[in-house]
Amino acid sequence: MARRFTRPLTTPAASRLPHEGNRPFVSLTSDWGLRDPSPAICRAVVLGIAPDALIVDITHEVDKYNIRHGALMLWCALPFMPIGAHVCVVDPGVGTARRPIAIETGRGDYLVGPDNGVLLPGAERLGGVARVHQIDNTQYRLPVVSATFHGRDLFSPAAAHLALGVPLEAIGPPLEPSDLTPIDWPQVVIRDGELETSVIYRDTFGNLKLAGLATDLATAFPGIARGETLHVQRGSARGAPIELAWGQTFGDVAKGESLLYEDSYGRLCIAQNQGNAAAGLGLDEGMTLRISRSG
Amino acid sequence: MARRFTRPLTTPAASRLPHEGNRPFVSLTSDWGLRDPSPAICRAVVLGIAPDALIVDITHEVDKYNIRHGALMLWCALPFMPIGAHVCVVDPGVGTARRPIAIETGRGDYLVGPDNGVLLPGAERLGGVARVHQIDNTQYRLPVVSATFHGRDLFSPAAAHLALGVPLEAIGPPLEPSDLTPIDWPQVVIRDGELETSVIYRDTFGNLKLAGLATDLATAFPGIARGETLHVQRGSARGAPIELAWGQTFGDVAKGESLLYEDSYGRLCIAQNQGNAAAGLGLDEGMTLRISRSG
Amino acid sequence: MARRFTRPLTTPAASRLPHEGNRPFVSLTSDWGLRDPSPAICRAVVLGIAPDALIVDITHEVDKYNIRHGALMLWCALPFMPIGAHVCVVDPGVGTARRPIAIETGRGDYLVGPDNGVLLPGAERLGGVARVHQIDNTQYRLPVVSATFHGRDLFSPAAAHLALGVPLEAIGPPLEPSDLTPIDWPQVVIRDGELETSVIYRDTFGNLKLAGLATDLATAFPGIARGETLHVQRGSARGAPIELAWGQTFGDVAKGESLLYEDSYGRLCIAQNQGNAAAGLGLDEGMTLRISRSG
Repeated sequence: MARRFTRPLTTPAASRLPHEGNRPFVSLTSDWGLRDPSPAICRAVVLGIAPDALIVDITHEVDKYNIRHGALMLWCALPFMPIGAHVCVVDPGVGTARRPIAIETGRGDYLVGPDNGVLLPGAERLGGVARVHQIDNTQYRLPVVSATFHGRDLFSPAAAHLALGVPLEAIGPPLEPSDLTPIDWPQVVIRDGELETSVIYRDTFGNLKLAGLATDLATAFPGIARGETLHVQRGSARGAPIELAWGQTFGDVAKGESLLYEDSYGRLCIAQNQGNAAAGLGLDEGMTLRISRSG
Repeated sequence: MARRFTRPLTTPAASRLPHEGNRPFVSLTSDWGLRDPSPAICRAVVLGIAPDALIVDITHEVDKYNIRHGALMLWCALPFMPIGAHVCVVDPGVGTARRPIAIETGRGDYLVGPDNGVLLPGAERLGGVARVHQIDNTQYRLPVVSATFHGRDLFSPAAAHLALGVPLEAIGPPLEPSDLTPIDWPQVVIRDGELETSVIYRDTFGNLKLAGLATDLATAFPGIARGETLHVQRGSARGAPIELAWGQTFGDVAKGESLLYEDSYGRLCIAQNQGNAAAGLGLDEGMTLRISRSG
Repeated sequence: MARRFTRPLTTPAASRLPHEGNRPFVSLTSDWGLRDPSPAICRAVVLGIAPDALIVDITHEVDKYNIRHGALMLWCALPFMPIGAHVCVVDPGVGTARRPIAIETGRGDYLVGPDNGVLLPGAERLGGVARVHQIDNTQYRLPVVSATFHGRDLFSPAAAHLALGVPLEAIGPPLEPSDLTPIDWPQVVIRDGELETSVIYRDTFGNLKLAGLATDLATAFPGIARGETLHVQRGSARGAPIELAWGQTFGDVAKGESLLYEDSYGRLCIAQNQGNAAAGLGLDEGMTLRISRSG
């Protein structure tokens, strides 16, 4: 568990889309689910403060209380969002002493949410933490703050005001970036011709996203070429490994076959062509994988 | 079953967010689900009539045909919405004799949907039913009205026109508010040192919302303080009750422990800290609960 | 399997809602699901190019890789959408040789997606394929195109540019409409007093949409009147058929009873009043049904 999120991250040039218009931009991410009215209420709270705001819901279907998933969603999505204020509420400690914070990133965005690590990988992806302030100015929240819905009462109003141009220092006192609560993010280890990493996310196609990035694979296996077969061994198992081609897209292998590829965000990923890799290969989140060359 | 929805309701001051801009506002709520294109079609129908409308989907994942759930979603969400026209379609009687109606609330909103009770708790929350008209002016609907999708053909167009400023009386003839179909809403009973209420909603966290409000608890147990333990007995059971602390937020109890608290809308709610109270306590919608002090 | 999608389609007059404003309109449809950030990222990509765009997500919950479902969603929804650019990504062949295309329809819309048939029924519904061009101008895509997320890198940017007024011929070279990959769409057969069709979609209510349209039923059974009982035989079964009334809306039959009706898009559909027809009748997608009069 690193003190801060410091893995090297690649931001594709493709992903820089500065916001051309003058409309304030707010994105919303949470684990509330779309069955309950919470996301719509936050959207309405933002519109009540910033009626011209453009709002994009990144997702509200983060697994309940899963800080790592929330962080991954921001990591994937934020580089494609216009510069703006981004709320992320995966907040098992709501109403306790954990601090509500607003981070200013190197790109000029504000990341708004609880100080539990969920904002850090996304911040890193947008140029890192430039400044961070605690949210405590009662002027920039709803008049009554509940103990259980800070997304509505605290974070969405703060984001709406920041998106409108309220300066960060007006939101509350500054904090030391180094004092922020870190996120528990799996390490990637390269040793003895092996890349050891773990499955951090199973998407709805059954594709498995790994902690390792494509750049890690290139470091571990210099000169690796598309089409090369890799051995993937689960955890400490010693049996026959899974054999996966290092491919570029699903159609590189036959229908029903699996491959290891670089996903569209630069991350290592395992997929099955027109199938479900998690089910087909018996892999799931949290599993450690040891990848090696077959040659 | 009350003739009308008349439970005393608390609207937090925090929830009043009058719409500052000049854009017409429309919200959409239904039991259609997000897999089918129905919500998107209604959104497009509104935009076809009012291209500048701001539209918020409160939820489309109301349990199928569950009028009480639909009503609860409006009750929770509407106070946070800008003043506007709010469509709610949970409508098992679509195409039959049940009347399509538009209610004007005390706050100045329009609530648009079937006359089956689903609009009434939300109307009460916005200052009550000021006027109600039947929707029957063919000028404010789509040219062809199907027998099975009044949300698209009747309710969304009416809401879009009302949001644009069409006067309520142009939509159709007036109805007597006292003639509206009531909603079947569970009563809360306070007697012999007990608060008897029932579970009306299990949210996606497994939190259980009760028919009773926090004000009911204060009435039943004068001087009750946070941290006090309460006995919760299911239905007519005589065994050992569940013991729950009367807390303020999830972190008031240890991880995996449950509590009774006032949710962010003023309603009694049972939750488990970072867990699922419904699964953990074996409670579900429709169960009657008898709450008493332990002392 | 037809070379092209050529079934006669009825577009209700009600469904023509030309876009009154000047804002570019973009719709998004996919099988990505709402748990992952992909839909939000595409929305942000469109806004990065066309900050004033109106965007409607038709659905992102198309069954994975189900081209026929994606096509049906467009077929249902597009006539109700403002004229604009409509992205549909159900694309099992992403990154392979299948061509990315943009179709101009008779109504003046652009349909943007893979050349795998998914766009054709929707195009037919909007006046047919007027012109079609391959998408290959690097000026109208993101700077880096991944091998696995063409929705983000290729299709959404192309749609945003087309919605802004970029002419179709600037997007890439023209293709012959007759060279487009057809869609595998079930045929409807009328013979010997029988209408043979099949179930193509089970919606979230458990309603079953058939390949056949209401006009097919009128052709097969001249003079058929509402209330008439029809025999519905599954596949090649010879046992007792299901008996269904030809009704107009759910309330035409008692609660829990099923009926055959014309859905709000002109399609034959089987539903159970306030119940789930798929579960109740044991019917599901892919089943062939033979419908005959009982008289």
